[in-house]
Amino acid sequence: MQTFSIFEPISDQLNQVDDRLKEFAESSDLPSLKELLTHAFDSTGKLARPALTLLTAGFHPNNGAKVVTMATAVEMLHVATLIHDDTVDEADTRRGRVTVSSNWGRHTAVLLGDYVFAASATYVCATGNIRVIKRFSETIMDLSRGQMQETANSRNIQHGMDEYFERIYFKTASLFSTSGESGAILSGASESTVQSLKTYSEKIGLAFQVVDDVLDITGTQQAIGKPVGSDLFNGVITLPTIYAIEDPDCREKVELFLTNPSNTELHSEIVDAIKGSDVGEKSYKFADQLIEEAKLALKPLEDNDCKKSLLDLADFIISRNT
Amino acid sequence: MQTFSIFEPISDQLNQVDDRLKEFAESSDLPSLKELLTHAFDSTGKLARPALTLLTAGFHPNNGAKVVTMATAVEMLHVATLIHDDTVDEADTRRGRVTVSSNWGRHTAVLLGDYVFAASATYVCATGNIRVIKRFSETIMDLSRGQMQETANSRNIQHGMDEYFERIYFKTASLFSTSGESGAILSGASESTVQSLKTYSEKIGLAFQVVDDVLDITGTQQAIGKPVGSDLFNGVITLPTIYAIEDPDCREKVELFLTNPSNTELHSEIVDAIKGSDVGEKSYKFADQLIEEAKLALKPLEDNDCKKSLLDLADFIISRNT
Repeated sequence: MQTFSIFEPISDQLNQVDDRLKEFAESSDLPSLKELLTHAFDSTGKLARPALTLLTAGFHPNNGAKVVTMATAVEMLHVATLIHDDTVDEADTRRGRVTVSSNWGRHTAVLLGDYVFAASATYVCATGNIRVIKRFSETIMDLSRGQMQETANSRNIQHGMDEYFERIYFKTASLFSTSGESGAILSGASESTVQSLKTYSEKIGLAFQVVDDVLDITGTQQAIGKPVGSDLFNGVITLPTIYAIEDPDCREKVELFLTNPSNTELHSEIVDAIKGSDVGEKSYKFADQLIEEAKLALKPLEDNDCKKSLLDLADFIISRNT
Repeated sequence: MQTFSIFEPISDQLNQVDDRLKEFAESSDLPSLKELLTHAFDSTGKLARPALTLLTAGFHPNNGAKVVTMATAVEMLHVATLIHDDTVDEADTRRGRVTVSSNWGRHTAVLLGDYVFAASATYVCATGNIRVIKRFSETIMDLSRGQMQETANSRNIQHGMDEYFERIYFKTASLFSTSGESGAILSGASESTVQSLKTYSEKIGLAFQVVDDVLDITGTQQAIGKPVGSDLFNGVITLPTIYAIEDPDCREKVELFLTNPSNTELHSEIVDAIKGSDVGEKSYKFADQLIEEAKLALKPLEDNDCKKSLLDLADFIISRNT
């Protein structure tokens, strides 16, 4: 596997994670399960979350074995949530590949997701660290809670900044936070180092989701791999919409669209209005603030290759366009 | 709550479990989640699995707190699997009550199931016992694997006794086994006592599922709370069908039905043929053998109230008709 350049200091370990994931997928003795797992783990992307676990373990000497196991679990959990999210969203493809639910049916997708969730928990158990195991379980609760909030509050224009922030913590930043916190804990770092790395990880997780939500409306279909404005189309109110409806004209249109979701012309009109406004800029400013806070949290830590990568990762999150 | 008479020696603790479940359901600060959880935990039945955890802890002095926590987790896991099973099976009701998936939609049911799965794992973490935590995660894998096997092998008449046994272990006996094993472990019992209670629990779990599968075809719709012959109707090959198709005539009819699942007349004909044959008797004999093995496993253990309850529970499993 070709490691993303920022992850160079941990490329060997990240390759071990990749190998462990492939081993897991191929080790099943049930042929149909093996096929499903191989499909699910075939598109692991940049492995950003496990990389975070490996990098945050770089501030205290450790033999690396537990950290690699934890990093593997983190990616497995991420894959499990993608399987269930695609089932809930009835998505046909993800990043150009067919989803488990569309190809094998949503029933199989529900059960496969459960299986991968549980398998990830057994990997965390192998670390033998109760604190990390507990955080991991709480994170699974957060992830499902975030998705449930998104469903429960969809098409509700009354939900503003506070609700948005809580929701993106649950659905995205909690797993980032746990990925970073657990790497630090398992390396044996001091509590203050653990807290610094936890704060950093949570902040970049929040920024990651904000950027995702901005790209959903300012990106191109080719770059983001889904139709532009999908969130609004699905009734999900994100930061760009929250900023956009500060303008009364836009608010009226959004309100109308949320009660008439089949009015695609109105949807296009709103998307164009947002693209032409300063909403994108304001949203990026918001994400930028989070990134600065993330970097600030790293200040007390010693300068080393892992710290340099974490700083670069923070910058990358804000600059990415896919 | 009115305790089932067999569970008398542990009625106080079982009431604590019931309270803990209600507390969990009511503690959510998200109103929609609270409503869902209250519904999901409102029909907990006899609490057989947590009772097993409490009874198997009765062979070594212990303060009971960890065991009650574990017993609560076991029921939460059971409820989580019911939520996902009803989603996968598209069931409208369970035991006369509307299911989460039919009332709130399958999307919400998938996420609620995930949430309860994860919450159960956090309860297990609170026991602080890694061995128990690991077994618990493996059990969640077994449960989803059992359901996946059922889906993958449905309408496949080639799958006989071995496959059936493996599947009912995964979908039912694994959780029984873990319920009993964890009670014994957390009580601090010796390894030989743990193994005896684990074997007992696994065997009654297998017998429980066999009886369930027999009642599906020999019971009445009123008693079992679903149409008679549902398993065959859904293409699931269980012990009664495996015995029934030893008769070439019946095999031919079953083969025909499995490829023509809309032929309800043929379905009724097969169900009547099985009811009129010795298949029910043979299946009960099979379950009876498992119950005898379960009781035998308890032989080395001291005689006490909990042991008496476990022996009575074994007998109850074979004699129940709902």
